[in-house]
Amino acid sequence: MVYLDYSATTPVNKEVLNSFNKVCLEYLGNANSLHKLGRESFHLMEASTKQIANLLNVDISEVLFTSGASEANNLAIMGSVLKYKNRGNHILTTKLEHSSVSKTMDYLKMNGYEIEYINILENGLIDLKDLENKIKDTTILVSINHVNSEIGIIQDINKIGLLLKKYPKIIFHSDGTQAIGKISVNLDNIDLYSFSGHKIYGIPGVGCLIKKKSLELIPIIHGGKSQNIYRSGTPTVALYASLAKALKLALNDLDNKYDYVLKLNKILKKNLETIDQIHINSNNFCVPHILNISIDGIKPETIMHALAQNDIYISTKTACSYDDSLSESVLALTNNKKLASTSIRISLSYLTTLEDINYFVEILKKKITELTFKKGE
Amino acid sequence: MVYLDYSATTPVNKEVLNSFNKVCLEYLGNANSLHKLGRESFHLMEASTKQIANLLNVDISEVLFTSGASEANNLAIMGSVLKYKNRGNHILTTKLEHSSVSKTMDYLKMNGYEIEYINILENGLIDLKDLENKIKDTTILVSINHVNSEIGIIQDINKIGLLLKKYPKIIFHSDGTQAIGKISVNLDNIDLYSFSGHKIYGIPGVGCLIKKKSLELIPIIHGGKSQNIYRSGTPTVALYASLAKALKLALNDLDNKYDYVLKLNKILKKNLETIDQIHINSNNFCVPHILNISIDGIKPETIMHALAQNDIYISTKTACSYDDSLSESVLALTNNKKLASTSIRISLSYLTTLEDINYFVEILKKKITELTFKKGE
Repeated sequence: MVYLDYSATTPVNKEVLNSFNKVCLEYLGNANSLHKLGRESFHLMEASTKQIANLLNVDISEVLFTSGASEANNLAIMGSVLKYKNRGNHILTTKLEHSSVSKTMDYLKMNGYEIEYINILENGLIDLKDLENKIKDTTILVSINHVNSEIGIIQDINKIGLLLKKYPKIIFHSDGTQAIGKISVNLDNIDLYSFSGHKIYGIPGVGCLIKKKSLELIPIIHGGKSQNIYRSGTPTVALYASLAKALKLALNDLDNKYDYVLKLNKILKKNLETIDQIHINSNNFCVPHILNISIDGIKPETIMHALAQNDIYISTKTACSYDDSLSESVLALTNNKKLASTSIRISLSYLTTLEDINYFVEILKKKITELTFKKGE
Repeated sequence: MVYLDYSATTPVNKEVLNSFNKVCLEYLGNANSLHKLGRESFHLMEASTKQIANLLNVDISEVLFTSGASEANNLAIMGSVLKYKNRGNHILTTKLEHSSVSKTMDYLKMNGYEIEYINILENGLIDLKDLENKIKDTTILVSINHVNSEIGIIQDINKIGLLLKKYPKIIFHSDGTQAIGKISVNLDNIDLYSFSGHKIYGIPGVGCLIKKKSLELIPIIHGGKSQNIYRSGTPTVALYASLAKALKLALNDLDNKYDYVLKLNKILKKNLETIDQIHINSNNFCVPHILNISIDGIKPETIMHALAQNDIYISTKTACSYDDSLSESVLALTNNKKLASTSIRISLSYLTTLEDINYFVEILKKKITELTFKKGE
């Protein structure tokens, strides 16, 4: 099997799963219970929180566990605009966001919020001048993802965060789901940062929102005691411990893993550039882990199924979208409907081998020839 | 160890954990991915959904997975009052609810909703006449838990549901977290019903909201595709499968397990009734799995820690509450602040043995004598 869909979900690391099992079996108490068993669970929760805080260089109180990145993005956006609604109703975001951000924006739009989209430059980066031009008195939130999930464009969130420091009442949120574990992250100038376990070889069902201490939120899940006051529900301590472990492993040897994936990406790109029908959408501003291409005249689903016949797995676009229409991200980058309707995403990992890449290229060439020939019949 | 805190959380069943591990390792695709690996995960998600639907005798489309009961309660309440806000802003509930219901009500109250509490009869059941008297044109939601988490009172939700059929625009939600796996459940007349995995020997981090087909909700987590349109986020298929398995095991041989726990409860109660300082708060309308008592002159924390010295674990009250004040539930039932400030919860399971009960009674008597003597010094 050649799995090239790591940006949709990653296989669970066995060490992480072992940790999870150990906690499930050995920590019997509800972390909210005041007796010894409860306290043991509570202390493990604190240790997991501390580990994540240390790994990301933030304060312990700034780590909020959630059920995943979708909840973290919703909590960041809904929680802050509800909390600070007296400041205004204007939100700036981009056309490169994951659906858990973009659909939350759509919902807010229906409820009286004004959503504006920051222009994207030709290289895929947001236009910082346009961002500043669009800021007004009523702007309360800017939400820009760190790494786009379909094309892989890395936004300079540190620079954006610094720029936004001039506007102290504006909250800056960044969805880091596709960044964490791929590139190094500096959260000094970010107010809210979301990520998920299942994109970093962790267990699906746990995520995290890093929230600056000075900021408050209205919860989206109300109730009693939990890991923190912004998210109720019995603490899922085994999942928290699994996330801490997954994050530790993901950040371990990050530079070498990055270099390795970059090397694979270059080989892959070089090979794909020799195929006439292929247009490469990802550019040098992208993580090497994601390579988005469009194949002229072939539908994404068709090539995906053809590759699956040879046990090769890629994505047509981000897994989390409702319809089969155009790729919003490719359209935002290229402004070309043809490219946006024929794009596929190949996503790599430090687990990917050179053999995987070579086999993929070999089969892809074969399939393109077959499908083009069929079409010509 | 004598664990008598099953209503706070239950130990994970090893069969359930094995299922979870199997899915984690063998199902590699994101259930939203369209390729074969994604489809395999998708089909397993469908099978888990179907299994839960069959076990609860509801339609497949009526099973919505969540991260737990707190999210399910929030989604039920917030989702329905937001969706049907044009119908009115009046909500009826009780003083016997879990914090994930009561705090959501507090939040709604701060946001212009009118929350009224239905009277509780001396036996702990809600006053059906009072319920009907309090219904008005603007009533949109009635939320009453099935089994109270601190005292164990079982509300006749079927009867309440039938009564509410006369008011077709009122939505009826019941929190079933402490009921599922303890007593049989008939959801024919319930619009929304919540429960959680970790109270039925499942894995913490997954829950369920049963939602009548005819009803719509506004999501609290917006985004793209997931198990259903009311809750976004990458499907956590291993957790879903674990919940289906846990539910199946929990409902298996339910009557015999109930009878066994009832027998233990009777023995326990008979023994406790011989202790002068003890007042038993739970009554015959309660599940036998929960026995709430008050101990005259001894603080709940004091007796809890004293018992823990002998490796016995009970609760001071529901684990999920922010402060150490009175037990709201005991106060609602008894209208007696002294009882409400000295109550503890002993919670039993089919895993509890007669030896556990005997040892608990022996040590409890000893501790009460010691603590009373100390106080008298």
